[in-house]
Amino acid sequence: MIDLRSDTVTKPDERMRKAMYEAEVGDDVYGEDPTVNRLEQRAAEILGKDAALFVTSGTQGNQIAGLVHCRPGQEVLLESQAHIFLYEGAAMSALAGVQLKTIEGIQGAMDPVEVEQAIRGKDIHEPETGLICLENTHNKAGGAVLSVEHMKAIYEIAQRHQIPVHLDGARLFNAQAATGIPVAEFAKYTDTVQVCLSKGLGAPVGSIIAGSHDFIAKARKWRKRLGGGLRQVGVLAAPALIALEENPSRLVQDHDMAKELADGIQQMTAFEVLNEVETNIILVKLTNEHQMTENLLSYLKGKGILAGGFGPGIIRFVTNNGISHEHIKETLTKLKKFQ
Amino acid sequence: MIDLRSDTVTKPDERMRKAMYEAEVGDDVYGEDPTVNRLEQRAAEILGKDAALFVTSGTQGNQIAGLVHCRPGQEVLLESQAHIFLYEGAAMSALAGVQLKTIEGIQGAMDPVEVEQAIRGKDIHEPETGLICLENTHNKAGGAVLSVEHMKAIYEIAQRHQIPVHLDGARLFNAQAATGIPVAEFAKYTDTVQVCLSKGLGAPVGSIIAGSHDFIAKARKWRKRLGGGLRQVGVLAAPALIALEENPSRLVQDHDMAKELADGIQQMTAFEVLNEVETNIILVKLTNEHQMTENLLSYLKGKGILAGGFGPGIIRFVTNNGISHEHIKETLTKLKKFQ
Amino acid sequence: MIDLRSDTVTKPDERMRKAMYEAEVGDDVYGEDPTVNRLEQRAAEILGKDAALFVTSGTQGNQIAGLVHCRPGQEVLLESQAHIFLYEGAAMSALAGVQLKTIEGIQGAMDPVEVEQAIRGKDIHEPETGLICLENTHNKAGGAVLSVEHMKAIYEIAQRHQIPVHLDGARLFNAQAATGIPVAEFAKYTDTVQVCLSKGLGAPVGSIIAGSHDFIAKARKWRKRLGGGLRQVGVLAAPALIALEENPSRLVQDHDMAKELADGIQQMTAFEVLNEVETNIILVKLTNEHQMTENLLSYLKGKGILAGGFGPGIIRFVTNNGISHEHIKETLTKLKKFQ
Amino acid sequence: MIDLRSDTVTKPDERMRKAMYEAEVGDDVYGEDPTVNRLEQRAAEILGKDAALFVTSGTQGNQIAGLVHCRPGQEVLLESQAHIFLYEGAAMSALAGVQLKTIEGIQGAMDPVEVEQAIRGKDIHEPETGLICLENTHNKAGGAVLSVEHMKAIYEIAQRHQIPVHLDGARLFNAQAATGIPVAEFAKYTDTVQVCLSKGLGAPVGSIIAGSHDFIAKARKWRKRLGGGLRQVGVLAAPALIALEENPSRLVQDHDMAKELADGIQQMTAFEVLNEVETNIILVKLTNEHQMTENLLSYLKGKGILAGGFGPGIIRFVTNNGISHEHIKETLTKLKKFQ
Repeated sequence: MIDLRSDTVTKPDERMRKAMYEAEVGDDVYGEDPTVNRLEQRAAEILGKDAALFVTSGTQGNQIAGLVHCRPGQEVLLESQAHIFLYEGAAMSALAGVQLKTIEGIQGAMDPVEVEQAIRGKDIHEPETGLICLENTHNKAGGAVLSVEHMKAIYEIAQRHQIPVHLDGARLFNAQAATGIPVAEFAKYTDTVQVCLSKGLGAPVGSIIAGSHDFIAKARKWRKRLGGGLRQVGVLAAPALIALEENPSRLVQDHDMAKELADGIQQMTAFEVLNEVETNIILVKLTNEHQMTENLLSYLKGKGILAGGFGPGIIRFVTNNGISHEHIKETLTKLKKFQ
Repeated sequence: MIDLRSDTVTKPDERMRKAMYEAEVGDDVYGEDPTVNRLEQRAAEILGKDAALFVTSGTQGNQIAGLVHCRPGQEVLLESQAHIFLYEGAAMSALAGVQLKTIEGIQGAMDPVEVEQAIRGKDIHEPETGLICLENTHNKAGGAVLSVEHMKAIYEIAQRHQIPVHLDGARLFNAQAATGIPVAEFAKYTDTVQVCLSKGLGAPVGSIIAGSHDFIAKARKWRKRLGGGLRQVGVLAAPALIALEENPSRLVQDHDMAKELADGIQQMTAFEVLNEVETNIILVKLTNEHQMTENLLSYLKGKGILAGGFGPGIIRFVTNNGISHEHIKETLTKLKKFQ
Repeated sequence: MIDLRSDTVTKPDERMRKAMYEAEVGDDVYGEDPTVNRLEQRAAEILGKDAALFVTSGTQGNQIAGLVHCRPGQEVLLESQAHIFLYEGAAMSALAGVQLKTIEGIQGAMDPVEVEQAIRGKDIHEPETGLICLENTHNKAGGAVLSVEHMKAIYEIAQRHQIPVHLDGARLFNAQAATGIPVAEFAKYTDTVQVCLSKGLGAPVGSIIAGSHDFIAKARKWRKRLGGGLRQVGVLAAPALIALEENPSRLVQDHDMAKELADGIQQMTAFEVLNEVETNIILVKLTNEHQMTENLLSYLKGKGILAGGFGPGIIRFVTNNGISHEHIKETLTKLKKFQ
Repeated sequence: MIDLRSDTVTKPDERMRKAMYEAEVGDDVYGEDPTVNRLEQRAAEILGKDAALFVTSGTQGNQIAGLVHCRPGQEVLLESQAHIFLYEGAAMSALAGVQLKTIEGIQGAMDPVEVEQAIRGKDIHEPETGLICLENTHNKAGGAVLSVEHMKAIYEIAQRHQIPVHLDGARLFNAQAATGIPVAEFAKYTDTVQVCLSKGLGAPVGSIIAGSHDFIAKARKWRKRLGGGLRQVGVLAAPALIALEENPSRLVQDHDMAKELADGIQQMTAFEVLNEVETNIILVKLTNEHQMTENLLSYLKGKGILAGGFGPGIIRFVTNNGISHEHIKETLTKLKKFQ
């Protein structure tokens, strides 16, 4: 199968399996797992933050940020197609008791002027704005990169109003691969950042949340409440450490393949590529509105190719470390034959 | 002072004061306040529901609806300028743990097709849609009336998906006054409805929430948790009963005065009336964009007239039972002199 | 009917009704109700705090204290029979997301040593102690008074650990009446205090919560979220002001009558008085264990006397402003005849 | 180091490491991880439930039970020393909005009569009892086994009142090892059960929650919200499957060693063994009250032996798969020399 549904489907390679096999472990609830400790220290360094914490998923990292930064009855500003708003089961309202206020962005980026106008809380009727969340790269915007300048602009507004900024950087390493700008440069304009090691970077499980020492101390307690305080979790940290240290540069290949795939699709009259393909995500629309995306997905599946539906009329392809140039060619060949 | 800030500023009249003075009371936590019992029974009849409950405010009624209808982690659909979203301190997320998903409406009315498309919850990433909230008349849309047909269309979608509908009818009696259609006809296409007796109807304090017997039993318990289980509250129910039974027809005068005020303002080049004035609310913009609404508000205040800011560049006038035709004329005279 | 079920059943007297009738009012959401403002200022003075807020019930005041003082995931220490734990519908856990940790007290008073030992939160597995709640007088302990010394001891521990103390003083004026010590002297050893004006003090509806300016500012916002931000609520504040200023001294009569009733009951072999009657509550047990309290309650009801069940095998009598010496005599006479 | 602090410190053995290395994996969020699927199916069979779900910790399993079974404002009954009450950071109140009502048990077992008396919710002041939680074996009671008869008695009461029962069976396999009664026989008298695979059973990470199909479907969604929806988590499921299938019988050795250690300690006048040692936990007290447990712990640490403090004046030893008979002898030798 050529699996282009997501970069979450990547399987651990031989190095990672070996690292798990050999992992030096301890009880991480007691802070005694040396591999976890090493991973957290390296992650903090790479992200340019004081401290970092291993969490089991991007959702867990994002939720902990909401729980630590906010109080119930506050409002969180975020882009209208943010993962936190669309795909985390309303968890931030359920767990942290906050209202999510969305602002429609362009290429995943909210207009800083609109962000500033949306800040509220002085009047007795209004919730206070307690957090601003950004997403970089932005999944629903087709893996669009938020520029460092944009992040800086938002962060300066937030600072002025004493509101923390959290970055959902599930694919922040893709932003680094696309721009050559280190992740720490993006993370600089945030209070806290979450990065996934299990997507394009290929670890089987795990994300990192990073921020100040005080934030991480509180995050550790909330992680325990959510059931993310684990035992000999060095067995996950070992492949995650490889993902973090060795795989970021590999993402460039995913991006090249994504461009190759997008360029090929663009030339077919049956399809329209909806996004500027900056990273590893391609959003495709059928030009014939009467044709169903379900048909295309099932046609492809019959040919050994998996892609995903992504809202009405839209299909998403995501390149990842299980995909080769041959796979891209094969996919283009099969797409051409689709009527 | 000519107070046009809101219809919440209305003061109880002589009849109401007398009713308070004479109110037959008991301990309502034990269900023994005869005046409250009478009010709740009459309200249920008038709204066409099985049962009703006296609550201390519209916000309390709306919040109880969220708490009874929903479970944490669900999503509530409502119009993007709804009072529940803008002016209740994020309480529905804080108390009921639900995410609010807004849909931009026209004249306060969401497109039923968009509502149906927004329903979700099958996928593991998605919150289930747990409630649809409507607001009639719609405050931010300038007191716009949602038609019975519109409400029916939304309700049929909701029924098909087994999702309850709650109506924030803080000014539902204004919809009745504007259309001649009884409130029960609107409420028919809802599972629960909240109406305020303290706005145009003139009671000093209080709202009603109505629905099925089962809903009201649960609402009673949530009201207690919120601190709304009161003692000899017949002293509030007595004037509220007058508001409910005697004052709905009076709202027609508020609407007439609002039209008079709007017509007058419309003829001045300095101002633009933003809404079609169907009920008692007029939204006004200064045509000269360089002029500040703050200046206009403070000029008016200096002349003994109070109005309210209502978002950037917008002023709101609300007619109410403390306002006479002379007040309207006086206000128009003063507005004309504003440079 | 001689209603000895509770002091919540008291009905407003002529002065209070007249005060409602004549109350000067305004929109309290805008802070413009002069009667409310006067009540809040007087209450702050009497309780010795910076500021005070009118709330619709004791439960609302207590819940707001939890919401302002605590963050979700904290633990609240309180006596095992506290009203907040037993009779507020689990609201503090539901609304503020805190765990209640009870400590069994003697006469309503927790052992300070046990309180200090129960403080926790350093370990990652533990919730932080976020609040200590006291109740004075203590309802379930039969209206027992917590001494000023006891309150001071608890408060000093709390201060040492930087934990706020909230006093559920629903009947704090009874403690004043019983001891001659002003309420402010008790409230001195708390960060916040809630007092009811609707129990022995006789107001139809309402309580006060008092604390620092910062606390009250936050409390005002939470009150709005709970639906306790009201309009012309001066109509309730007017009788509440009478309750606060004129009625505290009257409670001595309730206490005298309670002692009279208790002394009388004590002499009957059929009954045992369970508590030392310090204030207005008498807890009575049937000495014959085979006899049902339900029978006694229904016998009394048949004779025109109401009392309340108060846990298995226990009956509670509460003297109040609707009770006279004749009523007490009548009650004793009827009790004597019960077999 | 002889590590007797807990059975959570166990490290994965060669078989488990190999299983991780070779694990067949897929994306478990899509339900495509064959190893996870196999583990969940086997766990359901062994526990005698319809379905099971892999979660990252016992805390996560317990919290999901609270979230699925309860609604905010309900009350949960559990033993006063339950892990859920003491060591999960008040998470059940923070996340599910429920109040925990504790009942003091004997050997970890609540009196069924007291449980039934504690059920409440009819009165408007009371929270409804929404869940009863048991813990078997009971950690704080020194690994005490709740008998099947006890569980049945509680379950019958719960059934009669239509209240679900959840079993925190973090060490349920120890109950099986101690009694010879299969875990399914205990789990029969529950609606849902959580078992840890990472304690005595030796998996590096992971627990199972089991119940009806409907429960598990809802649990899957809550797990996602808590950040427990993972990707190629077969790498954890593989060793967990070995823990589940091959290691339960091994626990008998832990119990034998625990008895050996307890018997030895009992004979020393300096110490008192506080619990009847039924499983793998020994609670020890210093007979000389002036001696500090901290001194003993640090003395032992100096001798290469780790034990844990467990409340004032108490030390806990837990045997586990890293402990041999030689370790026990060595520990006894060193304890003898402690003054």
